This record gives sequence, structure tokens and C-alpha cells, in this order.
Amino acid sequence: MKSNTFGTAFCLTTFGESHGPAIGGVIDGCPAGITIDMSLVDNELARRKPGIDAYMSQRHEPDEVEFLSGLFEGKTTGTPIAFIIRNKDAKTSDYDNIKDVFRPSHADFTYQEKYGIRDYAGGGRGSARTLLPCVVAGAVAKQILASQGVEIQSDVIRIGEERRDKDTVGAIVQGTIKNVPLGLGEPAFMKFHAVLAHAMMSINAAKGFEIGEGFNAAGMRGSECNDEFYFDGERIRTRTNHSGGVQGGITNGEDVVFRVAFKPIPSVMLPQKTVDIHGNETILEIQGRHDICVVPRVLPMVEAMAAMVTLDFILLKKMNKM
Amino acid sequence: MKSNTFGTAFCLTTFGESHGPAIGGVIDGCPAGITIDMSLVDNELARRKPGIDAYMSQRHEPDEVEFLSGLFEGKTTGTPIAFIIRNKDAKTSDYDNIKDVFRPSHADFTYQEKYGIRDYAGGGRGSARTLLPCVVAGAVAKQILASQGVEIQSDVIRIGEERRDKDTVGAIVQGTIKNVPLGLGEPAFMKFHAVLAHAMMSINAAKGFEIGEGFNAAGMRGSECNDEFYFDGERIRTRTNHSGGVQGGITNGEDVVFRVAFKPIPSVMLPQKTVDIHGNETILEIQGRHDICVVPRVLPMVEAMAAMVTLDFILLKKMNKM
Amino acid sequence: MKSNTFGTAFCLTTFGESHGPAIGGVIDGCPAGITIDMSLVDNELARRKPGIDAYMSQRHEPDEVEFLSGLFEGKTTGTPIAFIIRNKDAKTSDYDNIKDVFRPSHADFTYQEKYGIRDYAGGGRGSARTLLPCVVAGAVAKQILASQGVEIQSDVIRIGEERRDKDTVGAIVQGTIKNVPLGLGEPAFMKFHAVLAHAMMSINAAKGFEIGEGFNAAGMRGSECNDEFYFDGERIRTRTNHSGGVQGGITNGEDVVFRVAFKPIPSVMLPQKTVDIHGNETILEIQGRHDICVVPRVLPMVEAMAAMVTLDFILLKKMNKM
Amino acid sequence: MKSNTFGTAFCLTTFGESHGPAIGGVIDGCPAGITIDMSLVDNELARRKPGIDAYMSQRHEPDEVEFLSGLFEGKTTGTPIAFIIRNKDAKTSDYDNIKDVFRPSHADFTYQEKYGIRDYAGGGRGSARTLLPCVVAGAVAKQILASQGVEIQSDVIRIGEERRDKDTVGAIVQGTIKNVPLGLGEPAFMKFHAVLAHAMMSINAAKGFEIGEGFNAAGMRGSECNDEFYFDGERIRTRTNHSGGVQGGITNGEDVVFRVAFKPIPSVMLPQKTVDIHGNETILEIQGRHDICVVPRVLPMVEAMAAMVTLDFILLKKMNKM
Repeated sequence: MKSNTFGTAFCLTTFGESHGPAIGGVIDGCPAGITIDMSLVDNELARRKPGIDAYMSQRHEPDEVEFLSGLFEGKTTGTPIAFIIRNKDAKTSDYDNIKDVFRPSHADFTYQEKYGIRDYAGGGRGSARTLLPCVVAGAVAKQILASQGVEIQSDVIRIGEERRDKDTVGAIVQGTIKNVPLGLGEPAFMKFHAVLAHAMMSINAAKGFEIGEGFNAAGMRGSECNDEFYFDGERIRTRTNHSGGVQGGITNGEDVVFRVAFKPIPSVMLPQKTVDIHGNETILEIQGRHDICVVPRVLPMVEAMAAMVTLDFILLKKMNKM
Repeated sequence: MKSNTFGTAFCLTTFGESHGPAIGGVIDGCPAGITIDMSLVDNELARRKPGIDAYMSQRHEPDEVEFLSGLFEGKTTGTPIAFIIRNKDAKTSDYDNIKDVFRPSHADFTYQEKYGIRDYAGGGRGSARTLLPCVVAGAVAKQILASQGVEIQSDVIRIGEERRDKDTVGAIVQGTIKNVPLGLGEPAFMKFHAVLAHAMMSINAAKGFEIGEGFNAAGMRGSECNDEFYFDGERIRTRTNHSGGVQGGITNGEDVVFRVAFKPIPSVMLPQKTVDIHGNETILEIQGRHDICVVPRVLPMVEAMAAMVTLDFILLKKMNKM
Repeated sequence: MKSNTFGTAFCLTTFGESHGPAIGGVIDGCPAGITIDMSLVDNELARRKPGIDAYMSQRHEPDEVEFLSGLFEGKTTGTPIAFIIRNKDAKTSDYDNIKDVFRPSHADFTYQEKYGIRDYAGGGRGSARTLLPCVVAGAVAKQILASQGVEIQSDVIRIGEERRDKDTVGAIVQGTIKNVPLGLGEPAFMKFHAVLAHAMMSINAAKGFEIGEGFNAAGMRGSECNDEFYFDGERIRTRTNHSGGVQGGITNGEDVVFRVAFKPIPSVMLPQKTVDIHGNETILEIQGRHDICVVPRVLPMVEAMAAMVTLDFILLKKMNKM
Repeated sequence: MKSNTFGTAFCLTTFGESHGPAIGGVIDGCPAGITIDMSLVDNELARRKPGIDAYMSQRHEPDEVEFLSGLFEGKTTGTPIAFIIRNKDAKTSDYDNIKDVFRPSHADFTYQEKYGIRDYAGGGRGSARTLLPCVVAGAVAKQILASQGVEIQSDVIRIGEERRDKDTVGAIVQGTIKNVPLGLGEPAFMKFHAVLAHAMMSINAAKGFEIGEGFNAAGMRGSECNDEFYFDGERIRTRTNHSGGVQGGITNGEDVVFRVAFKPIPSVMLPQKTVDIHGNETILEIQGRHDICVVPRVLPMVEAMAAMVTLDFILLKKMNKM
């Protein structure tokens, strides 16, 4: 099945494990004739580079992307755009201690049970590193959106403050899609916010999604939560944006505003009780330095996924009328 | 495109408008040889019947489902199962007052802008009534799940208490999937909880989704939020369930626990400022009696969507190994 | 899975068995704002009515289509267009003699083995009658194509001449898509002619497909088979059309010309050796009057499938560029 | 859209241009725990190596495949299997003469018109070289099929005999799928032979497809063409195989036998009249040595596509029953 492909019109297929030869992706459905600025792609990748923030580990992961197809003289040709990022300095032996032990709240146990086999090094396919191809595809999508005036932004609106040594913290990220065209999203099962939720919950460590008032709406009255329409001289708008830019699953021209909750990274450096693959109880002590919070790495991811969803719907909208 | 189809293996295509001749659905991919108990289908539809709760309106909507295909002597044949529910007493004239007026926070405006045409009667395709086919398909899925020992439950965990006359309130519903098999969900973009989020956010009025600790996880430390593994004598389990039954996008055998936030129904009976299709400001007063809260109607919907997602992944899992 | 759905942008999901309550379909992705002339839909259905040709049986199948959704005041709204055709005078008891016997070269045996259950009456889901929804959807597609100047035509170019009593004959049908826009079809696995082949081979009794020179091309030299380009004053064209209007999987603006081979209908009225579901040898004598050749019924089918494929690619092409 | 992806359960996404940095593919949905013999993959690639046959050109294309993901200690892990083949000695300058000229019956013109841009070197995405990833994925599928006893074979049954200097010839290839399980294929639009036709017509230069009697069936009578059932002591079989192993779109356990017609390669070395991108008439003389017939290269392609289709349906069949 196509579980590693996201999108309907602008589609990304990703592949790769944390410590395999390479990770990468294939973009299918990118419109032809678009000039891609590679420095903007690099910028997005650089945003999640390690060592740029107190919350992140110091592992060296210099991520260089190589494009393999779909571009001709700097422009998209309408054919699939494939790219790879080599995994450097990947020493599988560093992970011998977790070969037979299930790290709590990681994907080790579920992958092993599901497939009967797993690439344990660095978390294999379950590693957050496997999201990098989304950042690349998102950087392509963002450029196309920018040419349409659409802008994607992300902000940390909550982050665990009490940082205890060797422990990790969670966070909430708010995403905003500005200047989003009216009429994006498709009825029933491709509502804009449903597909956006799908996209955001695909990011590692995401545990919650909300749009507009979100969970807060549950405590509101209809008269408070409704967004009054008015005419601003040019177009119909709403005075408030409790809806978060989406009504009936379709964008109404206001900013799309959503939030994603991330749990703390499960790789705490404190000793943890767990079991090995034979069911024997054991104590796990994760080695090395790891990130304390997903935040610095997920901001470009949240933006990337939002960009892909928005561009996808812009393309699909072209088919709504002859 | 297939925006009215949900599912990969067990697929539901829905159709119909609130006041058109009929609404209905087609289930494609239902396994063959399953005996369907029609009374269980009727029971699910009856749960969302009007007039059974103080929160619901008194409109008469006797919903009778007619199955048209895919069944032979009471059993599924592996071919598509189509069914329709006729819309009775549908008087389009009752909706003349909203023909040219956009009801705040409804789908009127966005549909009109997107398609340049809309069936305004009763909200047309945007009506919550169009979710009924999901309840039917969910009732089929539930029976198959029950034969596997899987049970779906939903509970209201918050509902707006201060009910003011002519106003409406929101709610939070918790869903639980019990006895869910280990290994459901597919990596990358078909993670169990991402597809579940997609399903839940497809329900009208849903504004938020979370799994396990959800938004609460954002304030936790890793050492608190991690679920310790242990061996219970038969199988590996977790002592806590902060993950909500899903790790790395794949079910770990614990109960799947999630919550969905619903905004107040936008059809308040208080006068509301809005605009008409020409952009002129006007006052809207919605006639008739409407529901005060989505809750009674959405419980079977939450369960239905959860049942479809779970069955879908049970079928897909069969392909993980030869 | 979605095996009963055809199309990417303009999608048809079909359902129904020959002798069940109804057959029908759901069109998803039809552009909004199109006026549908219902008499043209009826005309297409009438073309395959029984009793209008010496090759066809005299069974009464008055096919009346009822549209259930997706239309408002005669126009498409962009939401799914569902329709049903009731099966009248369907007496399951007429088929008691084939309940336990496999008719040679029918779908009886394979359905029974695949699913362990089958609706045997009239061939159930394997009946050519289940193609009727394609004719309806094709009639809708044809109208939209006509507004773009595209015309679909079908001709019988070979039919079995020696008609022996109680036997049946095969045929070859040629389809022509005229005024087809340049640039339809997508590289790799959605080449125009590959999808067209898929569509045509989905018609019951189809055993072969070819485009342009087809099998004849196997005996040609490159210098003979190549289509020379020239400029006709307005646009680039080819002097010959050995390619059948498709080059590299993409339409080149010349007429698309293809042929479909149909085997003789397997329901011969001569006694046939076969086995029953227990593997016992038996003699089958099919009762009643049946069609002698598929031709009269397949012409509208060939056109319908060609229309759906063409419209699908016209819609998809909109996404090739921003 | 996903036009570069083939398959429903076992899916291949391909990418790459003839003279770009690399071509490659991503297999999604390959079952876990399968040992892949890389020498068998190399063997398949070697079968289409240049210089091994009088019909093929002498260009050097040493094709080395590098696997990037989805394998762990030689076994499939259930995650996507990505691989690339670098394009060596690719000199774009060799193609300056076709930069602005449309080669007759190639994809140059249609790609240019569709996208407004094209990678002209070596035919770009339209090159038959872009099919190599199918051969790789087919080699993986073949190994899995072999473990189930299924065998795929291809034979040239017709090839243009009169070879004139600088000209090319067409051919017909017959494919046979032996020991194919009963019950493969899905009703309506995923009939085994319809998907197989789609697969075969996706191969460059394919102009026709037929199964069983194919076009010959058009001249037969039903009593001749029907396949009589009998019981061979173990299972129900047919005495003849006019159906080519598929009845009602589902395999009946007999060998699947089909034929594909290929046109002559359009790259004849004779001077040809054509036009340039401005519509000016010109004479094209293709340089270098090219293949005379597709046959040596397409045999592994025909087998690869047949293997992928067969494995796909074997996986899908698992979902037909609980």
C-alpha cells in the first residue's frame, strides 16, 4: 500500500531509515515550469540542524540534499522530483545495547511485533530523522505558495519550562497559513482541517491537533463561537476567526490557525525499567546526548506539512469547475 | 477526485444532501461471508434519532435504510454494499430565507464561493445529516470487529452546562477502542492515530483531536509521560497508557483512547448579524427548533468512524507478511 | 479496496447485482455548474435496450435511472452524483438450475472460489448488466466533453458472420475520440492509452485492446510506422496517425483511434459439459433467450468508458502547471 | 497526482530521466521478512544489457543498482525499499541536435506541449531507460512469487524479419504466468486482465494487448471459445484455456497467457521529415547507434510488470475474507 506517500495532487513518497545508506523522497505532481531556489531548500534543512539551540543535542548531522530527477536547468519539468540525503557517520554498533531492548514509548516494540523484524539502529524508520524529506518537499511547496502570496508560519506557544537534568519536555506549536485562498478543501473526507490534522499527526511525537478555538470551543456557546460575516468593501470576511479559517471543511479566506501538541521526546537519559524482546525485565540507560525537546526540529516540519497540504488543495481546486 | 470516499481496504463512499431525494453510501472492500445483523444497523441509527434527549430538536427524521447490493441471503458477498436512506418530509421552501443569506460558521459561504452553486436546503451536502451513511457503515464494521473481540465505546467527558435559551453548547467526547490488536497502523503517513484524527476531524463541528495524554503531554516531562514496559506472564504490556495505545503510529495492544472536541452547533436561534450573497449586511433569525448540542448525534458517529478505521487497519495488516 | 471505483479526477463507483434490488453508481469529482440534459442520459441507456436488434435477446429490461444527489435545479453542484436503476422482474428462482453448476467461461466458478459465496442469479455482480452505471456516468461525461468540442464514436468493424442456431459470436469494436485536446495522459503509469486499455478491458467479454496500428505495428518497420510531423499553418500535426493519437502516453491532438476485441457471449444455448460446485460432471442447458453478440450492448459502453477516461485527463491536465 | 506509482498493495514509484543524475524507484508495501537475493536482481538487469544481441545498440550502460532503504541484514523490513541507478557517461551535449526538433513518434512533441518544458537529453522521462526501476522491482516480486511456486515467462512469438539497414522492426511478446493462484483479481475495475493490460501498455512502444484468444476470439463462436470445466481428481480445471486463465476478471487457476504488441522503435537512422519547436519543417538525422528492436529489452520488462501485478493481487486477496 502507499502508506509512505502523502498528498493527492502534490504527492510526496518518503523512504529511508535513520542509519541506512540514505533517506529521501519523490515528489510526484509538482507543476511544471517552476524555478526552484535550492538555497531556500538548504535554509529549511539548516533550521533543524543540531547544535543551534540549547534544546538540541550536539550530534553531527550535516544534511546535504542531492536532487536526482525532475529538474531541468533549474526548473521543474512535471516529472517526479527525487532527492536523497546520505546518512553520514552512522555507526550501527552504537546501538547494540538497544538491539534487543524496547525503549519505552518508542516505536521499537510495535515495529518488532508488527513486522517480526526491525532496523533498530537509531530507531530505523521510526526515527524523527525520516521526516527530513518532508522538509525538503515542504521547501519546494513553500516557494510555489510564496509565488501565490501564501505564507506559512509557526510559533512555539508553550514549552516545558522546568528542565530537569537528563529529562525531556513537551511543547505546543501554533501554525498559521496566511493569505490562504478561499475555497480550499473538499467535502466529506478531504476537509481542509481533517487533512491538515492527518498531516500534523504524522509528525513524530504529535499527540494532539486543534484548529481555531479547538478544545476551547467545547466550553463556548454558539453565539460566542460563531464568526459574524461582514463585507469589507472588497470581499466577504468574518469579524472574528474562531473557526480558524475553515468552515464546512473549506477555507473561508481568513488565516488558517491551528495548534499541534507534542509529547516530550521519549529518549530520557535517566534509567528506565523496560523489557527485552524475550519479555525479560531490564533497566535501560540511553547513551549519548539527545535532544531535550522536539521544538527546534518540528517547526520546519509543521510548516512543511502545512505547505504541502495547502498546495495540494490549491491544485485540486482547479478541477472544481470546467 | 475521491473526496467522498474514506478508507483504504474497507472503503465507504457517501453521497447525498440533507433535503435531496436520498443520502446513502457504498462500502467497497467488506470481506465476504459475514452475516450482517440488520437490527444492529437500525439500533445505531436509532441512537441518533431526534427527540430522545433534551439536547436535541424535535424534527421528525425517521431514518430507514434500504440495502441495494452486496448481500446474498443475509451475508456479505465481497461485492460493494450500497444502501440509501430516503429524505422524508424535506420541504425546500422552508429554507427560502437562507437561500441568499450566509449563516455564520456554517458551510453556506464556503460552498457558494468554491462551487459557484449550492443546494441551500437544510445545509445541503454540508448538513450533519450527510454523516448518516457513516453510521450505517460503522454498524457493519462494528459487527465484524465484535467477532474479533474488538469493542468501541464513546463517552461525553465535557458538555457546556450553562444552557441559555436559544443558544447552543460544545462538548468533548472520549472514544475508546478496546481489545485492539497489536500492530495496526502503517508507518509514515498512515499512522493509526493520524488516520483516526483524519476520521474524527471529518465529523461536522469537530475542532480538535488528541490521543493518550494529548495536549496535556505538552506540559509533561519525558520520565512522566513514558509508558514502562513489563511482561504480564502472557505478553508485553505497558503499566501506564499515556500513549493512548499507539506508539510510533502502531497500536501496542493497550486500549486506544482519544478525545474529540466539538464546537457548539452554529444554528443558534438568536438574531445574528451576517451578509447575503451580494455582500449586503442583514440580520438572520434561524427558524424552527434545532439541536442544542451535537453530543447525542455524534456519539454513534465517533464510534462509527473509529470502527471503520480499526477494521481498515486489521485488513491492511494481513498484507504485512506473506 | 476501491476495485469498484474508476477514475482519478472524475471517478465512478458502481454497485449492484443483476437480480438484486438495484444497480447504480456514484460520480465523485464532476465539476460544478454543469447543466445535465437527462434526455441524453436516457438516450444512451436506450441504445442498449433489448429487442432493438437481431443480435439481442427479448428480455424486458426497462431501465429507468433515478438521480439521488449532486444536482440542484438541473445543475451539478460539485458534490457526488448518485443514481440507481431498479432491477425489475428479477426472479431469482429462474436461476435455480445454475445455483450449483458452473457455466463455462462465466464468472460463476471464480467468484465462488474467491469469496466462498456468490449471488448466482443472473450472474450477480459478474453480469454485463452491472456495467449500466458506466453508461450513465459516460452520458454525463459526454455532455461535458461535447461542450469542449470532444466527440466519441464507436463502430463495429468485425462481427462473427456465420450465425449458427443457439450459438453466439464475437466482434471487434473501433472507438474514435475526435477533437481530443493535446497533452492528455500522464507519464509512466497513467499513459493515456494504458488507462484507456484498463477501461476497455474492464468491459465484460473484452479480450484484447490496441491503439493506432496496434498488433499490426509488430510487422511494420520504423520508417513506415513513424508519423511525420508538419505544420498546417495553425498547429503542428502528423501526416499519418499510426500512433492512434497518442505519443509517449500523451495525446498529440490527432484523433485517438483504438479497437477492442470481444469474445462470443459464453451463454450459448447448446448443451455444454461442465461440473457442479461439488466437482461432479454434468450437462448444462441454459434456458431462456440470450443475446447472440455483445455488440449492440457494448457500443455505448465503449463510448462511455472512453468519455470518462478523456474527461478525467482533461481535469488532471489543469494541474500540470500553476 | 501519483502517475509514477503502480500497484495497490505492492506499489512501485519510479523517477528519473535518461540523462539525469540517476533513475530509481521506491517499493512500498513489500511484505516484511523476505530475503532478497541481490544476484537475481542483477541478473534481470543484465538481461537487458546492451551488446548482447544483434538487435541492440552498443552503447555502454553498465547499470548498477544501489539499495538505500527497507532492507536489514538482507531481509525486507516492511518499510519502503528505495534504490537508484546512476546514469553514467551521460553527455547532454550529444543531444543538442534534438533540443529544438521533434523526433517523429517520440514523446518530444507531446511532453513539450503538455509541460512547456522538457529534458530533451536522451528522451528524458520518455526514454525506455526509465523503465529500469520496474525491472528491479519485478526482480523482487519474482523472488516472492517463486517462493509461492509462481513462475513468469516471456517469449518472442513474432519479430520483424526483413531488417533493412538503418531501420527498425516491431514484435509480439507472449507472457505466461504459471501456477498462478485461483482467485486473483478484483471485480469491476481491478479485473486481473484489465490491470495486466494497464501494466503492459505502460511499457514504451506497446501498442496492443490481448489475453487468451484475444483478437482471435472475435471470430469464434461461443461453443468453440468456451472452456469446458472438469474435475481432475484434485480440483476443478478447464480442458482448454481460450480464456487465458482469467474468467470474470478473476484467475481460474490455469496459466495466464497474454500477448503484447510492440511497434518498431521510432529512432530510425534514416533521414526523416519533421518540424522544430517553432513549427519550421526540417530534416532529422538521428546520430549514433540505436537498438533495432525493443525485444531484447522488453522481455524482462514484460515479466517484471506481470510479476508485480500478480504479487499485488496475491496480497490483496488476503483481504477478501476475515
